[in-house]
Amino acid sequence: MEDLVKLRDEIDAIDDQIVSLFEQRMAVAENVAAFKRSVGKPVLDKEREKIKIQKVTEKTSNAFNRQAVESLFGQIMAVSRMLQYQRLASERTDVEGFQVGDMVTTPETKVVYTGVPGAYAEAAMDSYFGSEIRGFNVETFGDAMEAVHSGRAQYGVLPIENSSTGSVNEVYDLLSAYDNHIVGETMIKIEHALLGLPGSRIEDIRTVYSHPQGLMQCSRFLDAHREWQQVSLQNTAASAKRVLDDQDMGQAAIASRQAAKNFGLVVLKEKLNDLDNNFTRFVVISHEKVFRKSADKISVCFEVPHESGTLYNILGHFIFNGLSMTRIESRPIQGKPWQYRFFVDFNGNLREQAVRNALHGIQSETEGFRILGNYIGVGQQ
Amino acid sequence: MEDLVKLRDEIDAIDDQIVSLFEQRMAVAENVAAFKRSVGKPVLDKEREKIKIQKVTEKTSNAFNRQAVESLFGQIMAVSRMLQYQRLASERTDVEGFQVGDMVTTPETKVVYTGVPGAYAEAAMDSYFGSEIRGFNVETFGDAMEAVHSGRAQYGVLPIENSSTGSVNEVYDLLSAYDNHIVGETMIKIEHALLGLPGSRIEDIRTVYSHPQGLMQCSRFLDAHREWQQVSLQNTAASAKRVLDDQDMGQAAIASRQAAKNFGLVVLKEKLNDLDNNFTRFVVISHEKVFRKSADKISVCFEVPHESGTLYNILGHFIFNGLSMTRIESRPIQGKPWQYRFFVDFNGNLREQAVRNALHGIQSETEGFRILGNYIGVGQQ
Repeated sequence: MEDLVKLRDEIDAIDDQIVSLFEQRMAVAENVAAFKRSVGKPVLDKEREKIKIQKVTEKTSNAFNRQAVESLFGQIMAVSRMLQYQRLASERTDVEGFQVGDMVTTPETKVVYTGVPGAYAEAAMDSYFGSEIRGFNVETFGDAMEAVHSGRAQYGVLPIENSSTGSVNEVYDLLSAYDNHIVGETMIKIEHALLGLPGSRIEDIRTVYSHPQGLMQCSRFLDAHREWQQVSLQNTAASAKRVLDDQDMGQAAIASRQAAKNFGLVVLKEKLNDLDNNFTRFVVISHEKVFRKSADKISVCFEVPHESGTLYNILGHFIFNGLSMTRIESRPIQGKPWQYRFFVDFNGNLREQAVRNALHGIQSETEGFRILGNYIGVGQQ
Repeated sequence: MEDLVKLRDEIDAIDDQIVSLFEQRMAVAENVAAFKRSVGKPVLDKEREKIKIQKVTEKTSNAFNRQAVESLFGQIMAVSRMLQYQRLASERTDVEGFQVGDMVTTPETKVVYTGVPGAYAEAAMDSYFGSEIRGFNVETFGDAMEAVHSGRAQYGVLPIENSSTGSVNEVYDLLSAYDNHIVGETMIKIEHALLGLPGSRIEDIRTVYSHPQGLMQCSRFLDAHREWQQVSLQNTAASAKRVLDDQDMGQAAIASRQAAKNFGLVVLKEKLNDLDNNFTRFVVISHEKVFRKSADKISVCFEVPHESGTLYNILGHFIFNGLSMTRIESRPIQGKPWQYRFFVDFNGNLREQAVRNALHGIQSETEGFRILGNYIGVGQQ
């Protein structure tokens, strides 16, 4: 044990020198940054970084250290770039055109959701906005994004993630395709029930309708009824409407109890979900680029060049600026097979310097960077 | 410009000293590792690392450097752990029970796929195995995993990712739930067609059946026919079968040309895909833990503790060992809302030391770590 103490003392002495040298290096880097700013040179100089890596790795004595020194100096230069981005960012007055603003709603404020009345999205809208707005429904997620984009609705409410089935991919794709922004989020507890016509019995059912996520979330229940035909429709409430319209005692829908009320159906069985704690998170969308002073969650998306280590370096911008990442999701890029657009959620407000530094760095080192929104997150952590 | 040259010379001089100190530090770390091995102490000592970070950050002169030094020493200690894992790993003979072996198939080898004959999965099976095997079909992805697990099939062929719609979530979830392994992959070009009964016309269609991914991949075509009811079924070939069974001239299926042949349907319209280059990647599953000597792609999954920066540190194991990550996917963990299991693909073979180092490190710092397989990747990069 005495050995270990002695070895650790040696390491401590070495580390003190490394810290001191690192501080000296950053002081010189400040001057490099000032020079680059004065002549308008870009922060990232890939050629120079390549030469630097070559120089330092040549000085190592074995293959392991060579690899380690390459990674370490990759990191040191990334930190150096971050300092330079920080200096540049402090000179900018706004972030990508986002402005501080409050959400004001009146009884005339139009809010769009997807599905027929009784859909979980309607419940999400009610929970976020209360009843003093004018809600209306459209058929598809794309229709809702279009309504917000065109101004036919000031806000839209769209599901983005379920706690047991994961992301709603189509909404992620629409967020990157449309110039709309996230201004809020809300969470709804999902409690699926099996709904049928008045007088129908569970043993008569031959066909069950729901949204694909509804079917997935009740897969254990449905596995016990393999003889039933499962048919996916646009949303759960549309399934209830279908059962009402068809007037076929052999049909049932998986939807909310509210949908049963709205369509005059009866609940044949409750609590169908595989898991009791099943939540869906909805985002509130606006065409305006606004965020509240108290907003504490930011969503961004970007494409990373097809090089090893790039995603790692991008995530470093969050870590190095002390920002806490809460979610990362990837989606294919249309027309670029096997390349991906990443969506990252993290905690922060666009007025904070650390956030501006991170975003400036990420924007400089990715393609198609976009701030999707800054809003008040619901406590999912 | 002269200024810049001078500043860079200063940086170079500092860097030389940092490299030299780093080499000294690694030499001492070797002795620490030997000591730990001799007394059976674990490599990761979180308490000691916390104290170390506190010590070095106290020596910094400003907040930025404090953050940078914290990250940098996080990195240095990670490298140090990797060296120790390397020493330990070289003493191990196998990786998680995986053994080198060849895939031998005979005309009696049973291979399972999902869907009815004519499904894209059947085409994937044919392309991977040729015709000298005994293929059979089951209804669901879960059934296929179960057949491989129980030995009713030696191999299974399951779709895992499409180049335009992304991951097949259910298959990711099944890979983590079952003790089956990936032994190969293959890619199929997807060309959807609209299939109807002989004599039917496109203007008579009122209902279109397909797999949800089939409907998504043809969304532009379907947006021009909003009056059609879209119904999702288990797979594209099942949709063709449904059209044949129902004998309704108002019904059509989105499926392959092959499905039209198999079910005696006619092609009403070809090339429905939004994108011309639409591919689906399939994985080949076995219950055995085997990999070929020439395997060059590895898939793993793990859960990361709910702490900021953890995923970043885990990805560091790939970067620091010089391994190239090709894909990262996350899926919710059942019963743990808003926590995620990550799936990572990277290039390598389980016999390589760098791979063993990375995997040993990741296993030590994550929960539920599993090697899903080591196989020959198809050229998607």
